[in-house]
Amino acid sequence: MHLKAKNFKINFAILQSTIYKFNAMPKISYKGATMPESPIRKLVPFAENAKKRGIEVFHLNIGQPDIKTPKVALEAVINNTIEVLAYSRSEGSEEYRKKIANYYNKRNIPVTANEIIVTTGGSEALLFAMGSITDPGDEIIIPEPFYANYLGFSTASGVNVVPVISKIEDNFALPPIEEFEKLISSKTKAILICNPNNPTGYLYSKEEIQKLADIVKKHDLFLISDEVYREFIYDNEVHHSVLSGFGLDNHAIVIDSVSKRYSMCGARIGCLVSKNKEVLSTVLKFAQARLSPPTFAQIASEAALETPQSYFDEVIVEYKARRDILITELTKIEGVKVAKPKGAFYCVAELPVDDADKFAQWLLEDFNLNNQTVMVAPAAGFYSTKGIGTKQVRIAYVLKKEDLVRSVEILKAGIKKYNETSITNFDTHRND
Amino acid sequence: MHLKAKNFKINFAILQSTIYKFNAMPKISYKGATMPESPIRKLVPFAENAKKRGIEVFHLNIGQPDIKTPKVALEAVINNTIEVLAYSRSEGSEEYRKKIANYYNKRNIPVTANEIIVTTGGSEALLFAMGSITDPGDEIIIPEPFYANYLGFSTASGVNVVPVISKIEDNFALPPIEEFEKLISSKTKAILICNPNNPTGYLYSKEEIQKLADIVKKHDLFLISDEVYREFIYDNEVHHSVLSGFGLDNHAIVIDSVSKRYSMCGARIGCLVSKNKEVLSTVLKFAQARLSPPTFAQIASEAALETPQSYFDEVIVEYKARRDILITELTKIEGVKVAKPKGAFYCVAELPVDDADKFAQWLLEDFNLNNQTVMVAPAAGFYSTKGIGTKQVRIAYVLKKEDLVRSVEILKAGIKKYNETSITNFDTHRND
Repeated sequence: MHLKAKNFKINFAILQSTIYKFNAMPKISYKGATMPESPIRKLVPFAENAKKRGIEVFHLNIGQPDIKTPKVALEAVINNTIEVLAYSRSEGSEEYRKKIANYYNKRNIPVTANEIIVTTGGSEALLFAMGSITDPGDEIIIPEPFYANYLGFSTASGVNVVPVISKIEDNFALPPIEEFEKLISSKTKAILICNPNNPTGYLYSKEEIQKLADIVKKHDLFLISDEVYREFIYDNEVHHSVLSGFGLDNHAIVIDSVSKRYSMCGARIGCLVSKNKEVLSTVLKFAQARLSPPTFAQIASEAALETPQSYFDEVIVEYKARRDILITELTKIEGVKVAKPKGAFYCVAELPVDDADKFAQWLLEDFNLNNQTVMVAPAAGFYSTKGIGTKQVRIAYVLKKEDLVRSVEILKAGIKKYNETSITNFDTHRND
Repeated sequence: MHLKAKNFKINFAILQSTIYKFNAMPKISYKGATMPESPIRKLVPFAENAKKRGIEVFHLNIGQPDIKTPKVALEAVINNTIEVLAYSRSEGSEEYRKKIANYYNKRNIPVTANEIIVTTGGSEALLFAMGSITDPGDEIIIPEPFYANYLGFSTASGVNVVPVISKIEDNFALPPIEEFEKLISSKTKAILICNPNNPTGYLYSKEEIQKLADIVKKHDLFLISDEVYREFIYDNEVHHSVLSGFGLDNHAIVIDSVSKRYSMCGARIGCLVSKNKEVLSTVLKFAQARLSPPTFAQIASEAALETPQSYFDEVIVEYKARRDILITELTKIEGVKVAKPKGAFYCVAELPVDDADKFAQWLLEDFNLNNQTVMVAPAAGFYSTKGIGTKQVRIAYVLKKEDLVRSVEILKAGIKKYNETSITNFDTHRND
């Protein structure tokens, strides 16, 4: 009897530990489960495996320019005399914000230092904007395809993205403004544009911005404009900021970043600009909770504002040449559609493949041309509408011209081989 | 008639513009409106005004140490040879994560590089943790008083903080474990502790961690442990990480930061550590959306791991001496209650004033002792329960001993003068 009781005890302990084992996994959130993977970064492990197999990978997937960071920015960090690397002001130092205001004023964007909040990259500026103006379940209208991480920030904020579809056939021009108005509901809080656009390179005309301005004023919405590629405009076109004379003092929120402008993506400095005092005081509360933007990066970013104009002139000439050669070479491939970008350094291309996602992975896993391959970002992740853009990829023209030419050669050979292989596989399966 | 019609038109235009004027302000969100102001930073404008009036302000309000950052960290940044300041890996470089794992392994925290995600400060680590495990309306139980920004991150995440009150009379010991269990609902996703605690300096015993471990396993919750002050432990006490042998592989999420450890708050580098693979892959998605942690700061943080032990030994001796003199001096003021901290570098003191918030502002606006005053953080912002801690302040002992002694002198004189003035004001008002 005594032994039995002891056995019983032991069994109970095992049972309990078994229950614990089954029960033992606390659950992640719906938000976490639905956070999208980055279409730009999700194939990184396949690229790393390819590299381990000795294959050179041309990175067309990510907007990481090979352009050198301005010396004036790098030297400011090297010459720093910090002894205690202290917190800085949550909104960024006054000196830096004054210099940013000066930069904007020279570009017909009349703002003061107090209308700028320095952030950890444009990413954080957008997160703060969403937190300040939306609650879970609210909606933001975004022309798609759009920068993939907008979906991530929206999911993190509990916001539903309502897309307005722009088409490769129309060179990704903004759809008729009525399309926007149809989508406005009581839940709509903002329209978000990226100008010039990532991933399409589309540049909004003055008339388009004016029409958007009229809509947001009529319906009391915010107009968030991501203008981080402001400097990258080709063919003598002109960039129009939403803060340049559209009467949007209460409505406009500009997202900005030093990442692309000065080829310093690793700094992680951006800013949010608004003339709406309530927005500014609300964003400041989010900024205070995370204490301050990174100090070394602010030193680099403040100094970067002294970059000579010749740097940008050279960069624009280089990017324009890259764009031209990329578009020329891509259009030579049979079955490829591509929209010519007017700004930024991306283009969206539609490929003659069944599925760009599978194809992009296959390029890294199963293909090489003389031990070289390319990595592209499948464009489906730049759409929130399911089933659209599945044959499209985003290509960043951030590499040297000769590397771009070689990349397109590889892509062309890849498309041919992939379609042959797919057909063979298909036939094989049919014979099974 | 013609004229009338024209007038009518003009009036209509005025009317329309008036409607626009009233209507013209799009609204900020409930989330934005309810984001708390930082009790640590909200009085900064008053401090700046005091400084403009020529008054020296002793900053006891913020955990910004005056300790020098290790040379090895600062020199690594000065010696960097970066030409293109590129994005880094979203989860932090493999080399850095391997070194962090090594740091943990030496401290009886058995983790690998793949169980670490580098973040932009401990702040971002906590935001990622909340995003990964909570949805809007979910609850997190936190012993209060707690680090004020937990409330900010919770609000930003739509999470309701459910407090367990710890009391100054009990030296802020953890309340009986049953108090936690009573508060667990179907909405509860985690218990969040800070160990050693900011603002109370409380250090959790092994038994307390074990009890918390039992609860989270029983109820399938996460145990988030903010261990950024791990190194700051006094009186030969021992720190117990939630990842050191409590069987919490699926449940524990550790929040960490280089800010205090190496006196480099301005770097903005932290990390999230977990052995739960689902948590890690989810957090990675949040990390990918914001691209990468700041590059220069990672260089400094990686090098900081080479800081010699003598640096920490000296720092601990210094903080212990600061703590001892601060507590000794504070307890000499009549009516002041203070809990002796066992770790970190904060203490909560209850002052004989009507309202610590008003008093803290008054110290900056209306008081000085020989042109000097002190800035403290009103503790009400460290409680989520309204009406508690209203006479308490958080004092950070991050200044030199002589400055701390002088600060307490100023505080003592301030309390006396404030109470005299308040009584006078009160009487005056009664006579009105």
